[in-house]
Amino acid sequence: MTVPAAAGRDEVPARMRVAVLNRPGRLELQERPVPEPAPGYVLVAARSVGVCGSDVHYFQHGRIGDFVLRGPLVLGHEVSGRIVAAGPGVDPGRVGRRVAIEPGAGCGRCPQCRSGRYNLCPDMRFFATPPVDGAFGEYVLARADLTFDLPDQVSDDAAALLEPLSVGIWATGKAGLTPGSSVLIAGAGPIGLVTAQVARAHGATTIVVSDVAAHRLPAAERNGATAALRASDVPGACRDFDAFIDCSGAPAAIVAGIRALGPAGRAVLVGMGPDELVLPFAFMQRREITVTGTFRYANTWPTAIALAARGTVSLDALVTDHFPLAQAEQALRSVARQGTIKPVVEPWR
Amino acid sequence: MTVPAAAGRDEVPARMRVAVLNRPGRLELQERPVPEPAPGYVLVAARSVGVCGSDVHYFQHGRIGDFVLRGPLVLGHEVSGRIVAAGPGVDPGRVGRRVAIEPGAGCGRCPQCRSGRYNLCPDMRFFATPPVDGAFGEYVLARADLTFDLPDQVSDDAAALLEPLSVGIWATGKAGLTPGSSVLIAGAGPIGLVTAQVARAHGATTIVVSDVAAHRLPAAERNGATAALRASDVPGACRDFDAFIDCSGAPAAIVAGIRALGPAGRAVLVGMGPDELVLPFAFMQRREITVTGTFRYANTWPTAIALAARGTVSLDALVTDHFPLAQAEQALRSVARQGTIKPVVEPWR
Amino acid sequence: MTVPAAAGRDEVPARMRVAVLNRPGRLELQERPVPEPAPGYVLVAARSVGVCGSDVHYFQHGRIGDFVLRGPLVLGHEVSGRIVAAGPGVDPGRVGRRVAIEPGAGCGRCPQCRSGRYNLCPDMRFFATPPVDGAFGEYVLARADLTFDLPDQVSDDAAALLEPLSVGIWATGKAGLTPGSSVLIAGAGPIGLVTAQVARAHGATTIVVSDVAAHRLPAAERNGATAALRASDVPGACRDFDAFIDCSGAPAAIVAGIRALGPAGRAVLVGMGPDELVLPFAFMQRREITVTGTFRYANTWPTAIALAARGTVSLDALVTDHFPLAQAEQALRSVARQGTIKPVVEPWR
Amino acid sequence: MTVPAAAGRDEVPARMRVAVLNRPGRLELQERPVPEPAPGYVLVAARSVGVCGSDVHYFQHGRIGDFVLRGPLVLGHEVSGRIVAAGPGVDPGRVGRRVAIEPGAGCGRCPQCRSGRYNLCPDMRFFATPPVDGAFGEYVLARADLTFDLPDQVSDDAAALLEPLSVGIWATGKAGLTPGSSVLIAGAGPIGLVTAQVARAHGATTIVVSDVAAHRLPAAERNGATAALRASDVPGACRDFDAFIDCSGAPAAIVAGIRALGPAGRAVLVGMGPDELVLPFAFMQRREITVTGTFRYANTWPTAIALAARGTVSLDALVTDHFPLAQAEQALRSVARQGTIKPVVEPWR
Repeated sequence: MTVPAAAGRDEVPARMRVAVLNRPGRLELQERPVPEPAPGYVLVAARSVGVCGSDVHYFQHGRIGDFVLRGPLVLGHEVSGRIVAAGPGVDPGRVGRRVAIEPGAGCGRCPQCRSGRYNLCPDMRFFATPPVDGAFGEYVLARADLTFDLPDQVSDDAAALLEPLSVGIWATGKAGLTPGSSVLIAGAGPIGLVTAQVARAHGATTIVVSDVAAHRLPAAERNGATAALRASDVPGACRDFDAFIDCSGAPAAIVAGIRALGPAGRAVLVGMGPDELVLPFAFMQRREITVTGTFRYANTWPTAIALAARGTVSLDALVTDHFPLAQAEQALRSVARQGTIKPVVEPWR
Repeated sequence: MTVPAAAGRDEVPARMRVAVLNRPGRLELQERPVPEPAPGYVLVAARSVGVCGSDVHYFQHGRIGDFVLRGPLVLGHEVSGRIVAAGPGVDPGRVGRRVAIEPGAGCGRCPQCRSGRYNLCPDMRFFATPPVDGAFGEYVLARADLTFDLPDQVSDDAAALLEPLSVGIWATGKAGLTPGSSVLIAGAGPIGLVTAQVARAHGATTIVVSDVAAHRLPAAERNGATAALRASDVPGACRDFDAFIDCSGAPAAIVAGIRALGPAGRAVLVGMGPDELVLPFAFMQRREITVTGTFRYANTWPTAIALAARGTVSLDALVTDHFPLAQAEQALRSVARQGTIKPVVEPWR
Repeated sequence: MTVPAAAGRDEVPARMRVAVLNRPGRLELQERPVPEPAPGYVLVAARSVGVCGSDVHYFQHGRIGDFVLRGPLVLGHEVSGRIVAAGPGVDPGRVGRRVAIEPGAGCGRCPQCRSGRYNLCPDMRFFATPPVDGAFGEYVLARADLTFDLPDQVSDDAAALLEPLSVGIWATGKAGLTPGSSVLIAGAGPIGLVTAQVARAHGATTIVVSDVAAHRLPAAERNGATAALRASDVPGACRDFDAFIDCSGAPAAIVAGIRALGPAGRAVLVGMGPDELVLPFAFMQRREITVTGTFRYANTWPTAIALAARGTVSLDALVTDHFPLAQAEQALRSVARQGTIKPVVEPWR
Repeated sequence: MTVPAAAGRDEVPARMRVAVLNRPGRLELQERPVPEPAPGYVLVAARSVGVCGSDVHYFQHGRIGDFVLRGPLVLGHEVSGRIVAAGPGVDPGRVGRRVAIEPGAGCGRCPQCRSGRYNLCPDMRFFATPPVDGAFGEYVLARADLTFDLPDQVSDDAAALLEPLSVGIWATGKAGLTPGSSVLIAGAGPIGLVTAQVARAHGATTIVVSDVAAHRLPAAERNGATAALRASDVPGACRDFDAFIDCSGAPAAIVAGIRALGPAGRAVLVGMGPDELVLPFAFMQRREITVTGTFRYANTWPTAIALAARGTVSLDALVTDHFPLAQAEQALRSVARQGTIKPVVEPWR
């Protein structure tokens, strides 16, 4: 059954398919009612949903740090789609628009939100983070101001990947890259690759990407790196860099990266790793190194869309596989496969 | 007569030709002794010397603001060349190196120099600024630390143009450009063009260049502008830009540029103009606009070389004419010609 | 008639007295129903409401720039009081709390709000700015997150003056003051005086306040200035300051202030003045002066409360007169009187 | 024998007494010729020379990290005195001036120096750091631009302590303190105490100083701390601080301090400790904590003098003992004594 379309509303069925994580290691396809958008919200028909390492981690372990699966959870937070219904107070003219969704909604009222650091909002509601559902389903609700219209130059897949791109934009911003900078990036996974692309967008002229896996290095060279090398070669080959961005979470890579910095160098730690880390204290003091941890991002979608639309970054080539919703579990499992960079789930098929 | 080459010294003649401005409107070729480099200095055989608007201004008017011609002056401060002799305390291995020269030497001791703002040093000695001679001559002295080795990818002409490029690097730095920024640049002369290129290097995705002269707009589009338009079209076409960089010095362009800024927009005023300027005060307050004047640059040569060597900027195409030293006056006069962007004097011929 | 107190609600009458500006030059006392707090809002019984120059300007002229009186308006935006009712979703435990009110509420959703610059929100709703009513009345509604609990050390009067203090905090923040800075402040009115106090809190060691009126200078010396002088003496006496903050809006003071700056000096323009302003362009370029306009403030109340509670600033001594609500018009008129610094309306009497 | 005074020269003897560290654990008084100031240098008759922890470390261990004693070394780098002779090129009018000496001289030519970070100059020559002699002697040479005239309000002792004050100024600057900030400072030694004073000068309103030794806490409360507590109480008592400054070098204090930070908190590590340090990585990421190491300071003397002259900081009370030059070794040994804060050597007696 579907309800007929009204003003500010496309034709939307009453029920939808959703891939649900009920317990670690197993996704199940369920039917759920399609929700109604509350005031200030829109309903989005999902087109492309990227698979992120954190989705895989919840799938495998049922938790990430303090965030623990306590009930059924829908994964997926890298999302593009089309607005099909607008809640009260939202311009109905937005129905029909192709959009990218920023998956985290700060409260807008706390000191962090009011200071522009809403990524640190203690009441943040973030897609696919318990207890908030994500987008491995046909329809998903989003706060209207967190859906961003897409120009034609940005494909559905690319629009989903604006989320990892945002991680790279945030990290390079913290790293203070400017034209002519040199930057070492540890990790040639999806985050490392988009970070290399954004580093190039900043005008960095030396962009070295390292990875423990040699087979990942060619992708780095296709994605902005001016050189790519094995992680074990970093200590011998790299010194006096302006910035280091860790996208690996590997303690050895972090230490090697910090030691590769020059005076007043900046290290930005993006990749999640162990709770504690041994850092080269005396080295950091003598060179006045700055080390910053990052958590998600803030205010990056307009930048991300501008970069993708202008062709300054290339996201489509990062998508290595497409899966229908019924194969969302296979999508999660595919991440481990050599050669996979970014699998995408298409909930509409 | 030439003296035989010694260690740390190529073969250098005793006398050289120099083009001298004795009074406004007239350059004269003279012979002068080739100077000896003092401790910490090198002697450079000039290869390419760009003609700058300030050279033309001294040539025509004999002054720029408080800097007044009081005796003979050698013009030319955009310089590349080859080191032919090293003064005491300078590594003799540098003789033979192709270098770009940073033309301004701060004292290194005053509060401005010690704070990294040596461009504001009150005792700055700057090429071709009375009473300091410039480089329209076969040989020129330079402080060794202000000569920068050139990689093969940077031609002699491009190396001379690292000076105007530095102006653009300094201005875009003050403008706080980051990936995805929008910037309006007034003036499509050499500074406007290199500034547009550097804006692109910063990842700016909207780069609009304006000029009163329509015939200059195609060059803007070849040099990084995503759009180029007549100055008279700016008020109607441009609003809510992140940054405005004036490279025109024209009061009308400055006001229009500031009014094209969005909230918290930044205006950087590079082009020299009248002593006073009428600015839209209430507009600047309501939007918290920041307006900054710039004076030359600091610490830009390493960046400039990296950008040119990597191909992030293209400088050779800006050179529209080459003149031998004997025709330095024609080079100065050529700037007014439609189609001229940057004439270069080659003192060695 | 009063309604009995319920949970999350003190005893509140059904109607209240309000001083209304129906047309320029005349305040009228009216009765209005006491409003109910909507979700996320609280009802505050006003205790002290400072009279600001902008209140006086609306009273006299019926407009400030583009903000035009088109219907009855309640003035007053410097407000302290006591929460007497909490709307849905607000912790009822806050009823009874003494609070200061931040009078401007951004939308929390637009790019400006999300970037921490909510003072530039295009949908800002600000007390006593048409068409939003202010606090010259017995009760006033406020968004709960914009009411800040007061420690005992901060009196009702001081709490009202956290608003002008916020203007000073914002201005000095933009001015980049640090310990040892020198700052020139033009204008010894309430804003100039709190700005001097905050400059002292920043550790500035040279704080010169100027005013055209000699009789205002002693107050400057009591409020943080290390020296106070006539505006006409500034050009002769002041040079090479690190920062200049204009709290006068007077073009001559602004020009003199900018000319008093040293290299890389910063001018912050707080005082409202004419639409256009003639600035010393060549001087600003040669010294790389930065000029910034300011508009209200963002995220200043926690800072303001901390400074007042610690005694780092002294606000009570700025209050020169108290008026009951029925004499709100006299309060507005009292501002012109010599010796008046800050009159306060007490709507509860 | 003394030479008669000439222009730009007071009467200066031919020989002087110096306390020399020939091997760890033993200072010996020697006679040496009084040196002549080279161009750009002055000769200073030392008045007060503070004893620093690094002096004690060299005295005890003969090394600090990579800096190893390889020959006789004169300790002492916290110095005030009087100029008694001016080298060529120095204004002879400076002879007779009471001055503080900044003990580190950068080369002024390298990228670090030219960027305003001369503290990171690889060719830095620093008093009392092998192989450069310090000021435990009657006369000492200093680069003229690194001697700062003293106003009468700053005593000889206070002027010597401008050096540790500079460490505090540098650290608080990196910590980004502003009015209303909260800061935790670990370590109530001389550096912790001056840092607390400078934090107060920044307008910080919550300044908590911790130390493992309870007997040091009262001094903290006299020197700017709003509260002082045992190091073991920090984890229970401190959370959501804006900034943490470590002046202890103790790993446990550093971890506790970082964990006491709120979102976007900043940790500045001043105290020297072990080569490696275990930091709470996940905590730093979730809160986007920034950790910066510091090394000495840059451009702090003018600030330090302004703060001391204005009385914003109080340095004299930190001096707990005075020793004549012959007892310089006792001065070094006195540091370990309970109750000692800062011993001062007076080389003139």
